[in-house]
Amino acid sequence: MNFSSKLLEQAVLAFSQLPGVGKKSALRYALHLMDQPKEMTEQFTADIGAFRSLLQKCTTCGHLSDTTHCDICVDHRRDRQVICVVESIRDVLAIEATNQYFGVYHVLGGIISPIDGISPEDLSIDLLIERIEKSTVAEVILAIRPTIEGDTTSYYIAKRLEKFDQLKFSIISRGVSFGGELEFTDEITLGRSIQGRLPYDPNVMINT
Amino acid sequence: MNFSSKLLEQAVLAFSQLPGVGKKSALRYALHLMDQPKEMTEQFTADIGAFRSLLQKCTTCGHLSDTTHCDICVDHRRDRQVICVVESIRDVLAIEATNQYFGVYHVLGGIISPIDGISPEDLSIDLLIERIEKSTVAEVILAIRPTIEGDTTSYYIAKRLEKFDQLKFSIISRGVSFGGELEFTDEITLGRSIQGRLPYDPNVMINT
Repeated sequence: MNFSSKLLEQAVLAFSQLPGVGKKSALRYALHLMDQPKEMTEQFTADIGAFRSLLQKCTTCGHLSDTTHCDICVDHRRDRQVICVVESIRDVLAIEATNQYFGVYHVLGGIISPIDGISPEDLSIDLLIERIEKSTVAEVILAIRPTIEGDTTSYYIAKRLEKFDQLKFSIISRGVSFGGELEFTDEITLGRSIQGRLPYDPNVMINT
Repeated sequence: MNFSSKLLEQAVLAFSQLPGVGKKSALRYALHLMDQPKEMTEQFTADIGAFRSLLQKCTTCGHLSDTTHCDICVDHRRDRQVICVVESIRDVLAIEATNQYFGVYHVLGGIISPIDGISPEDLSIDLLIERIEKSTVAEVILAIRPTIEGDTTSYYIAKRLEKFDQLKFSIISRGVSFGGELEFTDEITLGRSIQGRLPYDPNVMINT
C-alpha cells in the first residue's frame, strides 16, 4: 500500500504490530485519530506510555500491579490459605471475571515446554515453594491448561510440593463446556468427562 | 471487568477508543505490550504521537501530507488537468491502491447531509473553485458515493462549476461488482446497471 506519507506509514506500521491487527485496521485506527482533536492522541499515547513504564509485577504472586504488591495479595478478604497456580496474567483476569474464586494466585509465567525451550527454571516455581514455606497454605489449585505440556507442568509442581504434608492439591474440573453439544465435543474431552463423572442429585444444581 | 490495576484499566480504555476495538481486544493489545520490551512501547507511542502532531493536510487538495503540499500534488508525472473529487482521505487511498488513476485529487471532507448538519459551506468546494480559476483544468471526476446524499453533492458541485465552459464532468461508473452475482445484487444497482449498459465488442476486454 502506498501512503504518500512517511508519518502515516509509520503510524500504520506501529498499529499493525499489535496482535491480530492487519494493515487495513491499522490504517483505520490512524485515520480515526486524525479525525479526532490532537489532545485525544496525546492522551492516548500518554496512557499507554504510562501503563508500560509504570506497571509492575507483584513481587508475591507475579500478577500485574500498580505497586509492589497487587490488589489481590493485599486484600484481607481473600483467603491466603488457597493459592491458585496459573500460567499467565490473562488467566488471573479470566478467573477473576467469574467472581467464583476468593483465594490468591501464583503466576508461573508460562508452562514447561521443551519445544519452546521453556524449562522449569524459567517459571516462578521456586518462588511458589518459598511462599508455601513462609506462610500457612492449605490448598494449591493447579489451574493450568489441559494439554500435554500443561499436565506435565502440573505434575512437576505437585512433585516439587510433595514435601509439604499439609498441602491439598486440586485441579480445575474438565469436561463438556456449558451449553456445549456432546456431538461436537472432541473425544478426549468427552472421554475425560465420562471418566470424571460426578454424583448427581436432582435437588442440587450443578456448578452454581 | 475488574483489572485490579488503574494503569491497565487506563490503557484498555485508551485502546478501546479505536474504531471496532472492544474491551477484550484492548486488553489483548495492552498485555501484548507488557510481554514486549519497554522500548517497543516507547517507539509505538512516539510514532503515533509524531504522526498526529506533525501530519498536515495538503493546502491544495486536502489529502494527508508530511509537508504543506502532498506527494501527489507535487508529482510532475500526474496530470493536473484532471481533478478527482472525493469525500475523504480514505477514498484517495482506495483509488491510489487501484493504480488506475494518474490525475490529482480534491478532498471535500464530507458530503452534503442535512440530517448530520453538513451543509455545502462545511465542504472545501470554494477551494475547488479557486483551484479551477487559477489553473487549467479540463476534467472533474465526481467520485462520490452513489447514495442520495452523494448524488446531491455531485449535483451541487456540478451546478457550482457550470460557469467554467471548458470543464468536462464525469462520474465513476456504477453497476455490478466484479465477480458479483446478478441474483444477489440489489435492485437499484442492477437497474442502474441496465440503464447504463455499455456497447459490447467481443474483441475488447471490458474495464481493463
